[in-house]
Amino acid sequence: MSVLEQAQAAEKASFRLASASTEAKNRALAGIAETIDKNRGRILAENLKDQEQARKTGLKDSLIKRLVLSEAKIDQIVESVRDVERLEDPVGKTLIARELDDGLVLRKKSVPIGVIGVIFESRPDALVQISTLCVNSGNAVILKGGSEALHSNRVLFDLIREGAEASDPVFRGALHLVETREQIGELLELDRWIDLVIPRGSNELVRRIQESTRIPVLGHAEGICHLYVDRHADLGMAVDVAFDAKCQYPAVCNAIETLLVHRDLAERYLPRLAERLKGVELRGDERTRAVIPAKAASEADWRTEYLDLILSIRVVDSLEEAVDHINTHSSHHTDAIVTGDEQTARRFLSEVDSSSVMWNCSTRFADGFRYGLGAEVGISTGKIHARGPVGLEGLTSTKFILEGSGQIVAQYAGGGRSFTHRDLPPQDPPGEGVQGRDR
Amino acid sequence: MSVLEQAQAAEKASFRLASASTEAKNRALAGIAETIDKNRGRILAENLKDQEQARKTGLKDSLIKRLVLSEAKIDQIVESVRDVERLEDPVGKTLIARELDDGLVLRKKSVPIGVIGVIFESRPDALVQISTLCVNSGNAVILKGGSEALHSNRVLFDLIREGAEASDPVFRGALHLVETREQIGELLELDRWIDLVIPRGSNELVRRIQESTRIPVLGHAEGICHLYVDRHADLGMAVDVAFDAKCQYPAVCNAIETLLVHRDLAERYLPRLAERLKGVELRGDERTRAVIPAKAASEADWRTEYLDLILSIRVVDSLEEAVDHINTHSSHHTDAIVTGDEQTARRFLSEVDSSSVMWNCSTRFADGFRYGLGAEVGISTGKIHARGPVGLEGLTSTKFILEGSGQIVAQYAGGGRSFTHRDLPPQDPPGEGVQGRDR
Repeated sequence: MSVLEQAQAAEKASFRLASASTEAKNRALAGIAETIDKNRGRILAENLKDQEQARKTGLKDSLIKRLVLSEAKIDQIVESVRDVERLEDPVGKTLIARELDDGLVLRKKSVPIGVIGVIFESRPDALVQISTLCVNSGNAVILKGGSEALHSNRVLFDLIREGAEASDPVFRGALHLVETREQIGELLELDRWIDLVIPRGSNELVRRIQESTRIPVLGHAEGICHLYVDRHADLGMAVDVAFDAKCQYPAVCNAIETLLVHRDLAERYLPRLAERLKGVELRGDERTRAVIPAKAASEADWRTEYLDLILSIRVVDSLEEAVDHINTHSSHHTDAIVTGDEQTARRFLSEVDSSSVMWNCSTRFADGFRYGLGAEVGISTGKIHARGPVGLEGLTSTKFILEGSGQIVAQYAGGGRSFTHRDLPPQDPPGEGVQGRDR
Repeated sequence: MSVLEQAQAAEKASFRLASASTEAKNRALAGIAETIDKNRGRILAENLKDQEQARKTGLKDSLIKRLVLSEAKIDQIVESVRDVERLEDPVGKTLIARELDDGLVLRKKSVPIGVIGVIFESRPDALVQISTLCVNSGNAVILKGGSEALHSNRVLFDLIREGAEASDPVFRGALHLVETREQIGELLELDRWIDLVIPRGSNELVRRIQESTRIPVLGHAEGICHLYVDRHADLGMAVDVAFDAKCQYPAVCNAIETLLVHRDLAERYLPRLAERLKGVELRGDERTRAVIPAKAASEADWRTEYLDLILSIRVVDSLEEAVDHINTHSSHHTDAIVTGDEQTARRFLSEVDSSSVMWNCSTRFADGFRYGLGAEVGISTGKIHARGPVGLEGLTSTKFILEGSGQIVAQYAGGGRSFTHRDLPPQDPPGEGVQGRDR
């Protein structure tokens, strides 16, 4: 099948999937977990092929490590599928229920988006996670994994499709895998059939995809996050938060790259910070370097995601200057302030234009699991559809459903009737939900 | 100023606008209404220039009519601004409130999107409506109106900007007008600064914009809407609903273009329909033409938005065939079923993939005002961000706000603390809202 044919089949399946019951979706997830669990030998054998190939082509050890599947890793994968089975069904929720007139009731309900394209690098377990989230939310999906994991991806995909399709015919044609790099280009052209693209991988991958498709993209390229230490900050707290935000796990998107400090505090704060951040390379502006030893920061430093033990530091004159610096240089991911003054904090939280803004805590909290979202589909720095850490609701759209008893518009346009527009409790009467039916 | 400079100024203003209080926005709207009210002479004089120019260039009478402003029309415009002032502020609503741990509280709040680009044709009152909706929702806006209304748009824009900026400095630089066709192209390139584009005008305008920008577009090109008359339909109701959906106002997007009828009903239903739809040109498939006189429908008919008194008709064998026809040919705007059988209705409502789906009522109800949304920003057939008739919430995004007392992630990653994830009532304590503060 060509990518176009796959997308057309996925669209067709998506129409039926939209009315799959929660029970049918959970049966499919149980079937997937069981099928993976029963085929461990096949998975490990295919994974060995990828490992051999990777060694032959001289892939870096760190990348090979991400590739390796073991019995313990398969345990984790099976458990992660059962976790998805336990998640709430995001589809069929009533968001608005409104009587327009006697016997004319409007509901706005959550529905699957339709067809999701997912492009990811390495880590075969990512394939399992995203495809089971799509099953749970009733979306058809087209997956493209990293070529290093070709055999592992293929066997895992086959088992997932087998497990889902065997449990219910509604999943036939809903799951697709594409394998070559050229097919990514074809896939990104199919905005008529694919409703959303989720890239999972390096900044370069995400940016390349954002720049080469008209399909909406859910994701973020860089995470250039800031911590602003205000003149009213508690010094100890500001040191602890900066250490955590930079050092607890520097290779991730919600770690900070730049620290801004108010001039009134710089002489007392920066030496304590430098002492705590031993081993971190500091790059500062002139006023920073007048207080502590640091390399000179260039304009490029304010725009660089180090993902490493490097921190750029700038002394600012005011909250306004801090907010301006952040709004100009931030990737709109996560930015935080440490201050004891509530009014200053409120202005920061309001005026900094980022998907997560924080007061007196570490930027590292910006994460779907820490936020209690149940599952994390991704983190979006776009402002349309979903912003910040995105849970399963990011895989849903909405639909207006109007139920009447023969009403026509002419009755209301000069015909003597008028609308009541009375909001109703959003619960569906038992058995009345569009999604309540088992197929 | 170049379009780029305007977009940069708009972005800068949008950061401040995000924390404008409801009171400040309402003062601006009151100022706009008053300024327009006080400058009627200036508006009418500028409008006359457009009318003269239009007559000189031989513009169609129907288009000139849409252009003309009168005292009565200005009354309506002023009243429409006061209506927007009475609308609820869509910004600052708490959508999620969750304690992550003792003293660590997460809120997800509605915020303005940022910078909106609006491109519309003719009708100078559209400029007033959309720019005041942007003021109410705290968005900066760049407007491009039709060239036929150049002078009218310019004077109305100047008065709106004057009224807003005089009421509060927070609106400085928030409103922009571009005037030439070439500038549309420049504007559509500015995805770095402009967050959303709203086209208002012909299908051609919308489609051209959708195809030439990476900025998300809120809108719909065609409205190819269907009515399916099921075998369990009440014949009288099915005739009334079809007549209303086709004839009550055929030139609009939520009127039907195609009627599908179950074969079991065709011989009884179609003659009654044809009798009621006298004056409507009917185009049918073979089975339709075996029952009533009609022109032969071609494949193109199933994909054409007539916006006129023309209806294409097809006889189908089953609900499945009707749903398939709709999902293949519909523009995913609004589709309806008439049936007395609930299970059939539920399947239709669930499996038809359109922004509004209806049971036993007219497609003409698909409209922001009839749905009770307060105001209509547009109708979206996209599945991302907003779908169906879109109220003021379509001009908002969200932001996660995390407030702590020094918490760091290391405490939770092996440091002994764990998350409570306890949902809180979504109300903000008095005076604590990010948006509650007056500037």
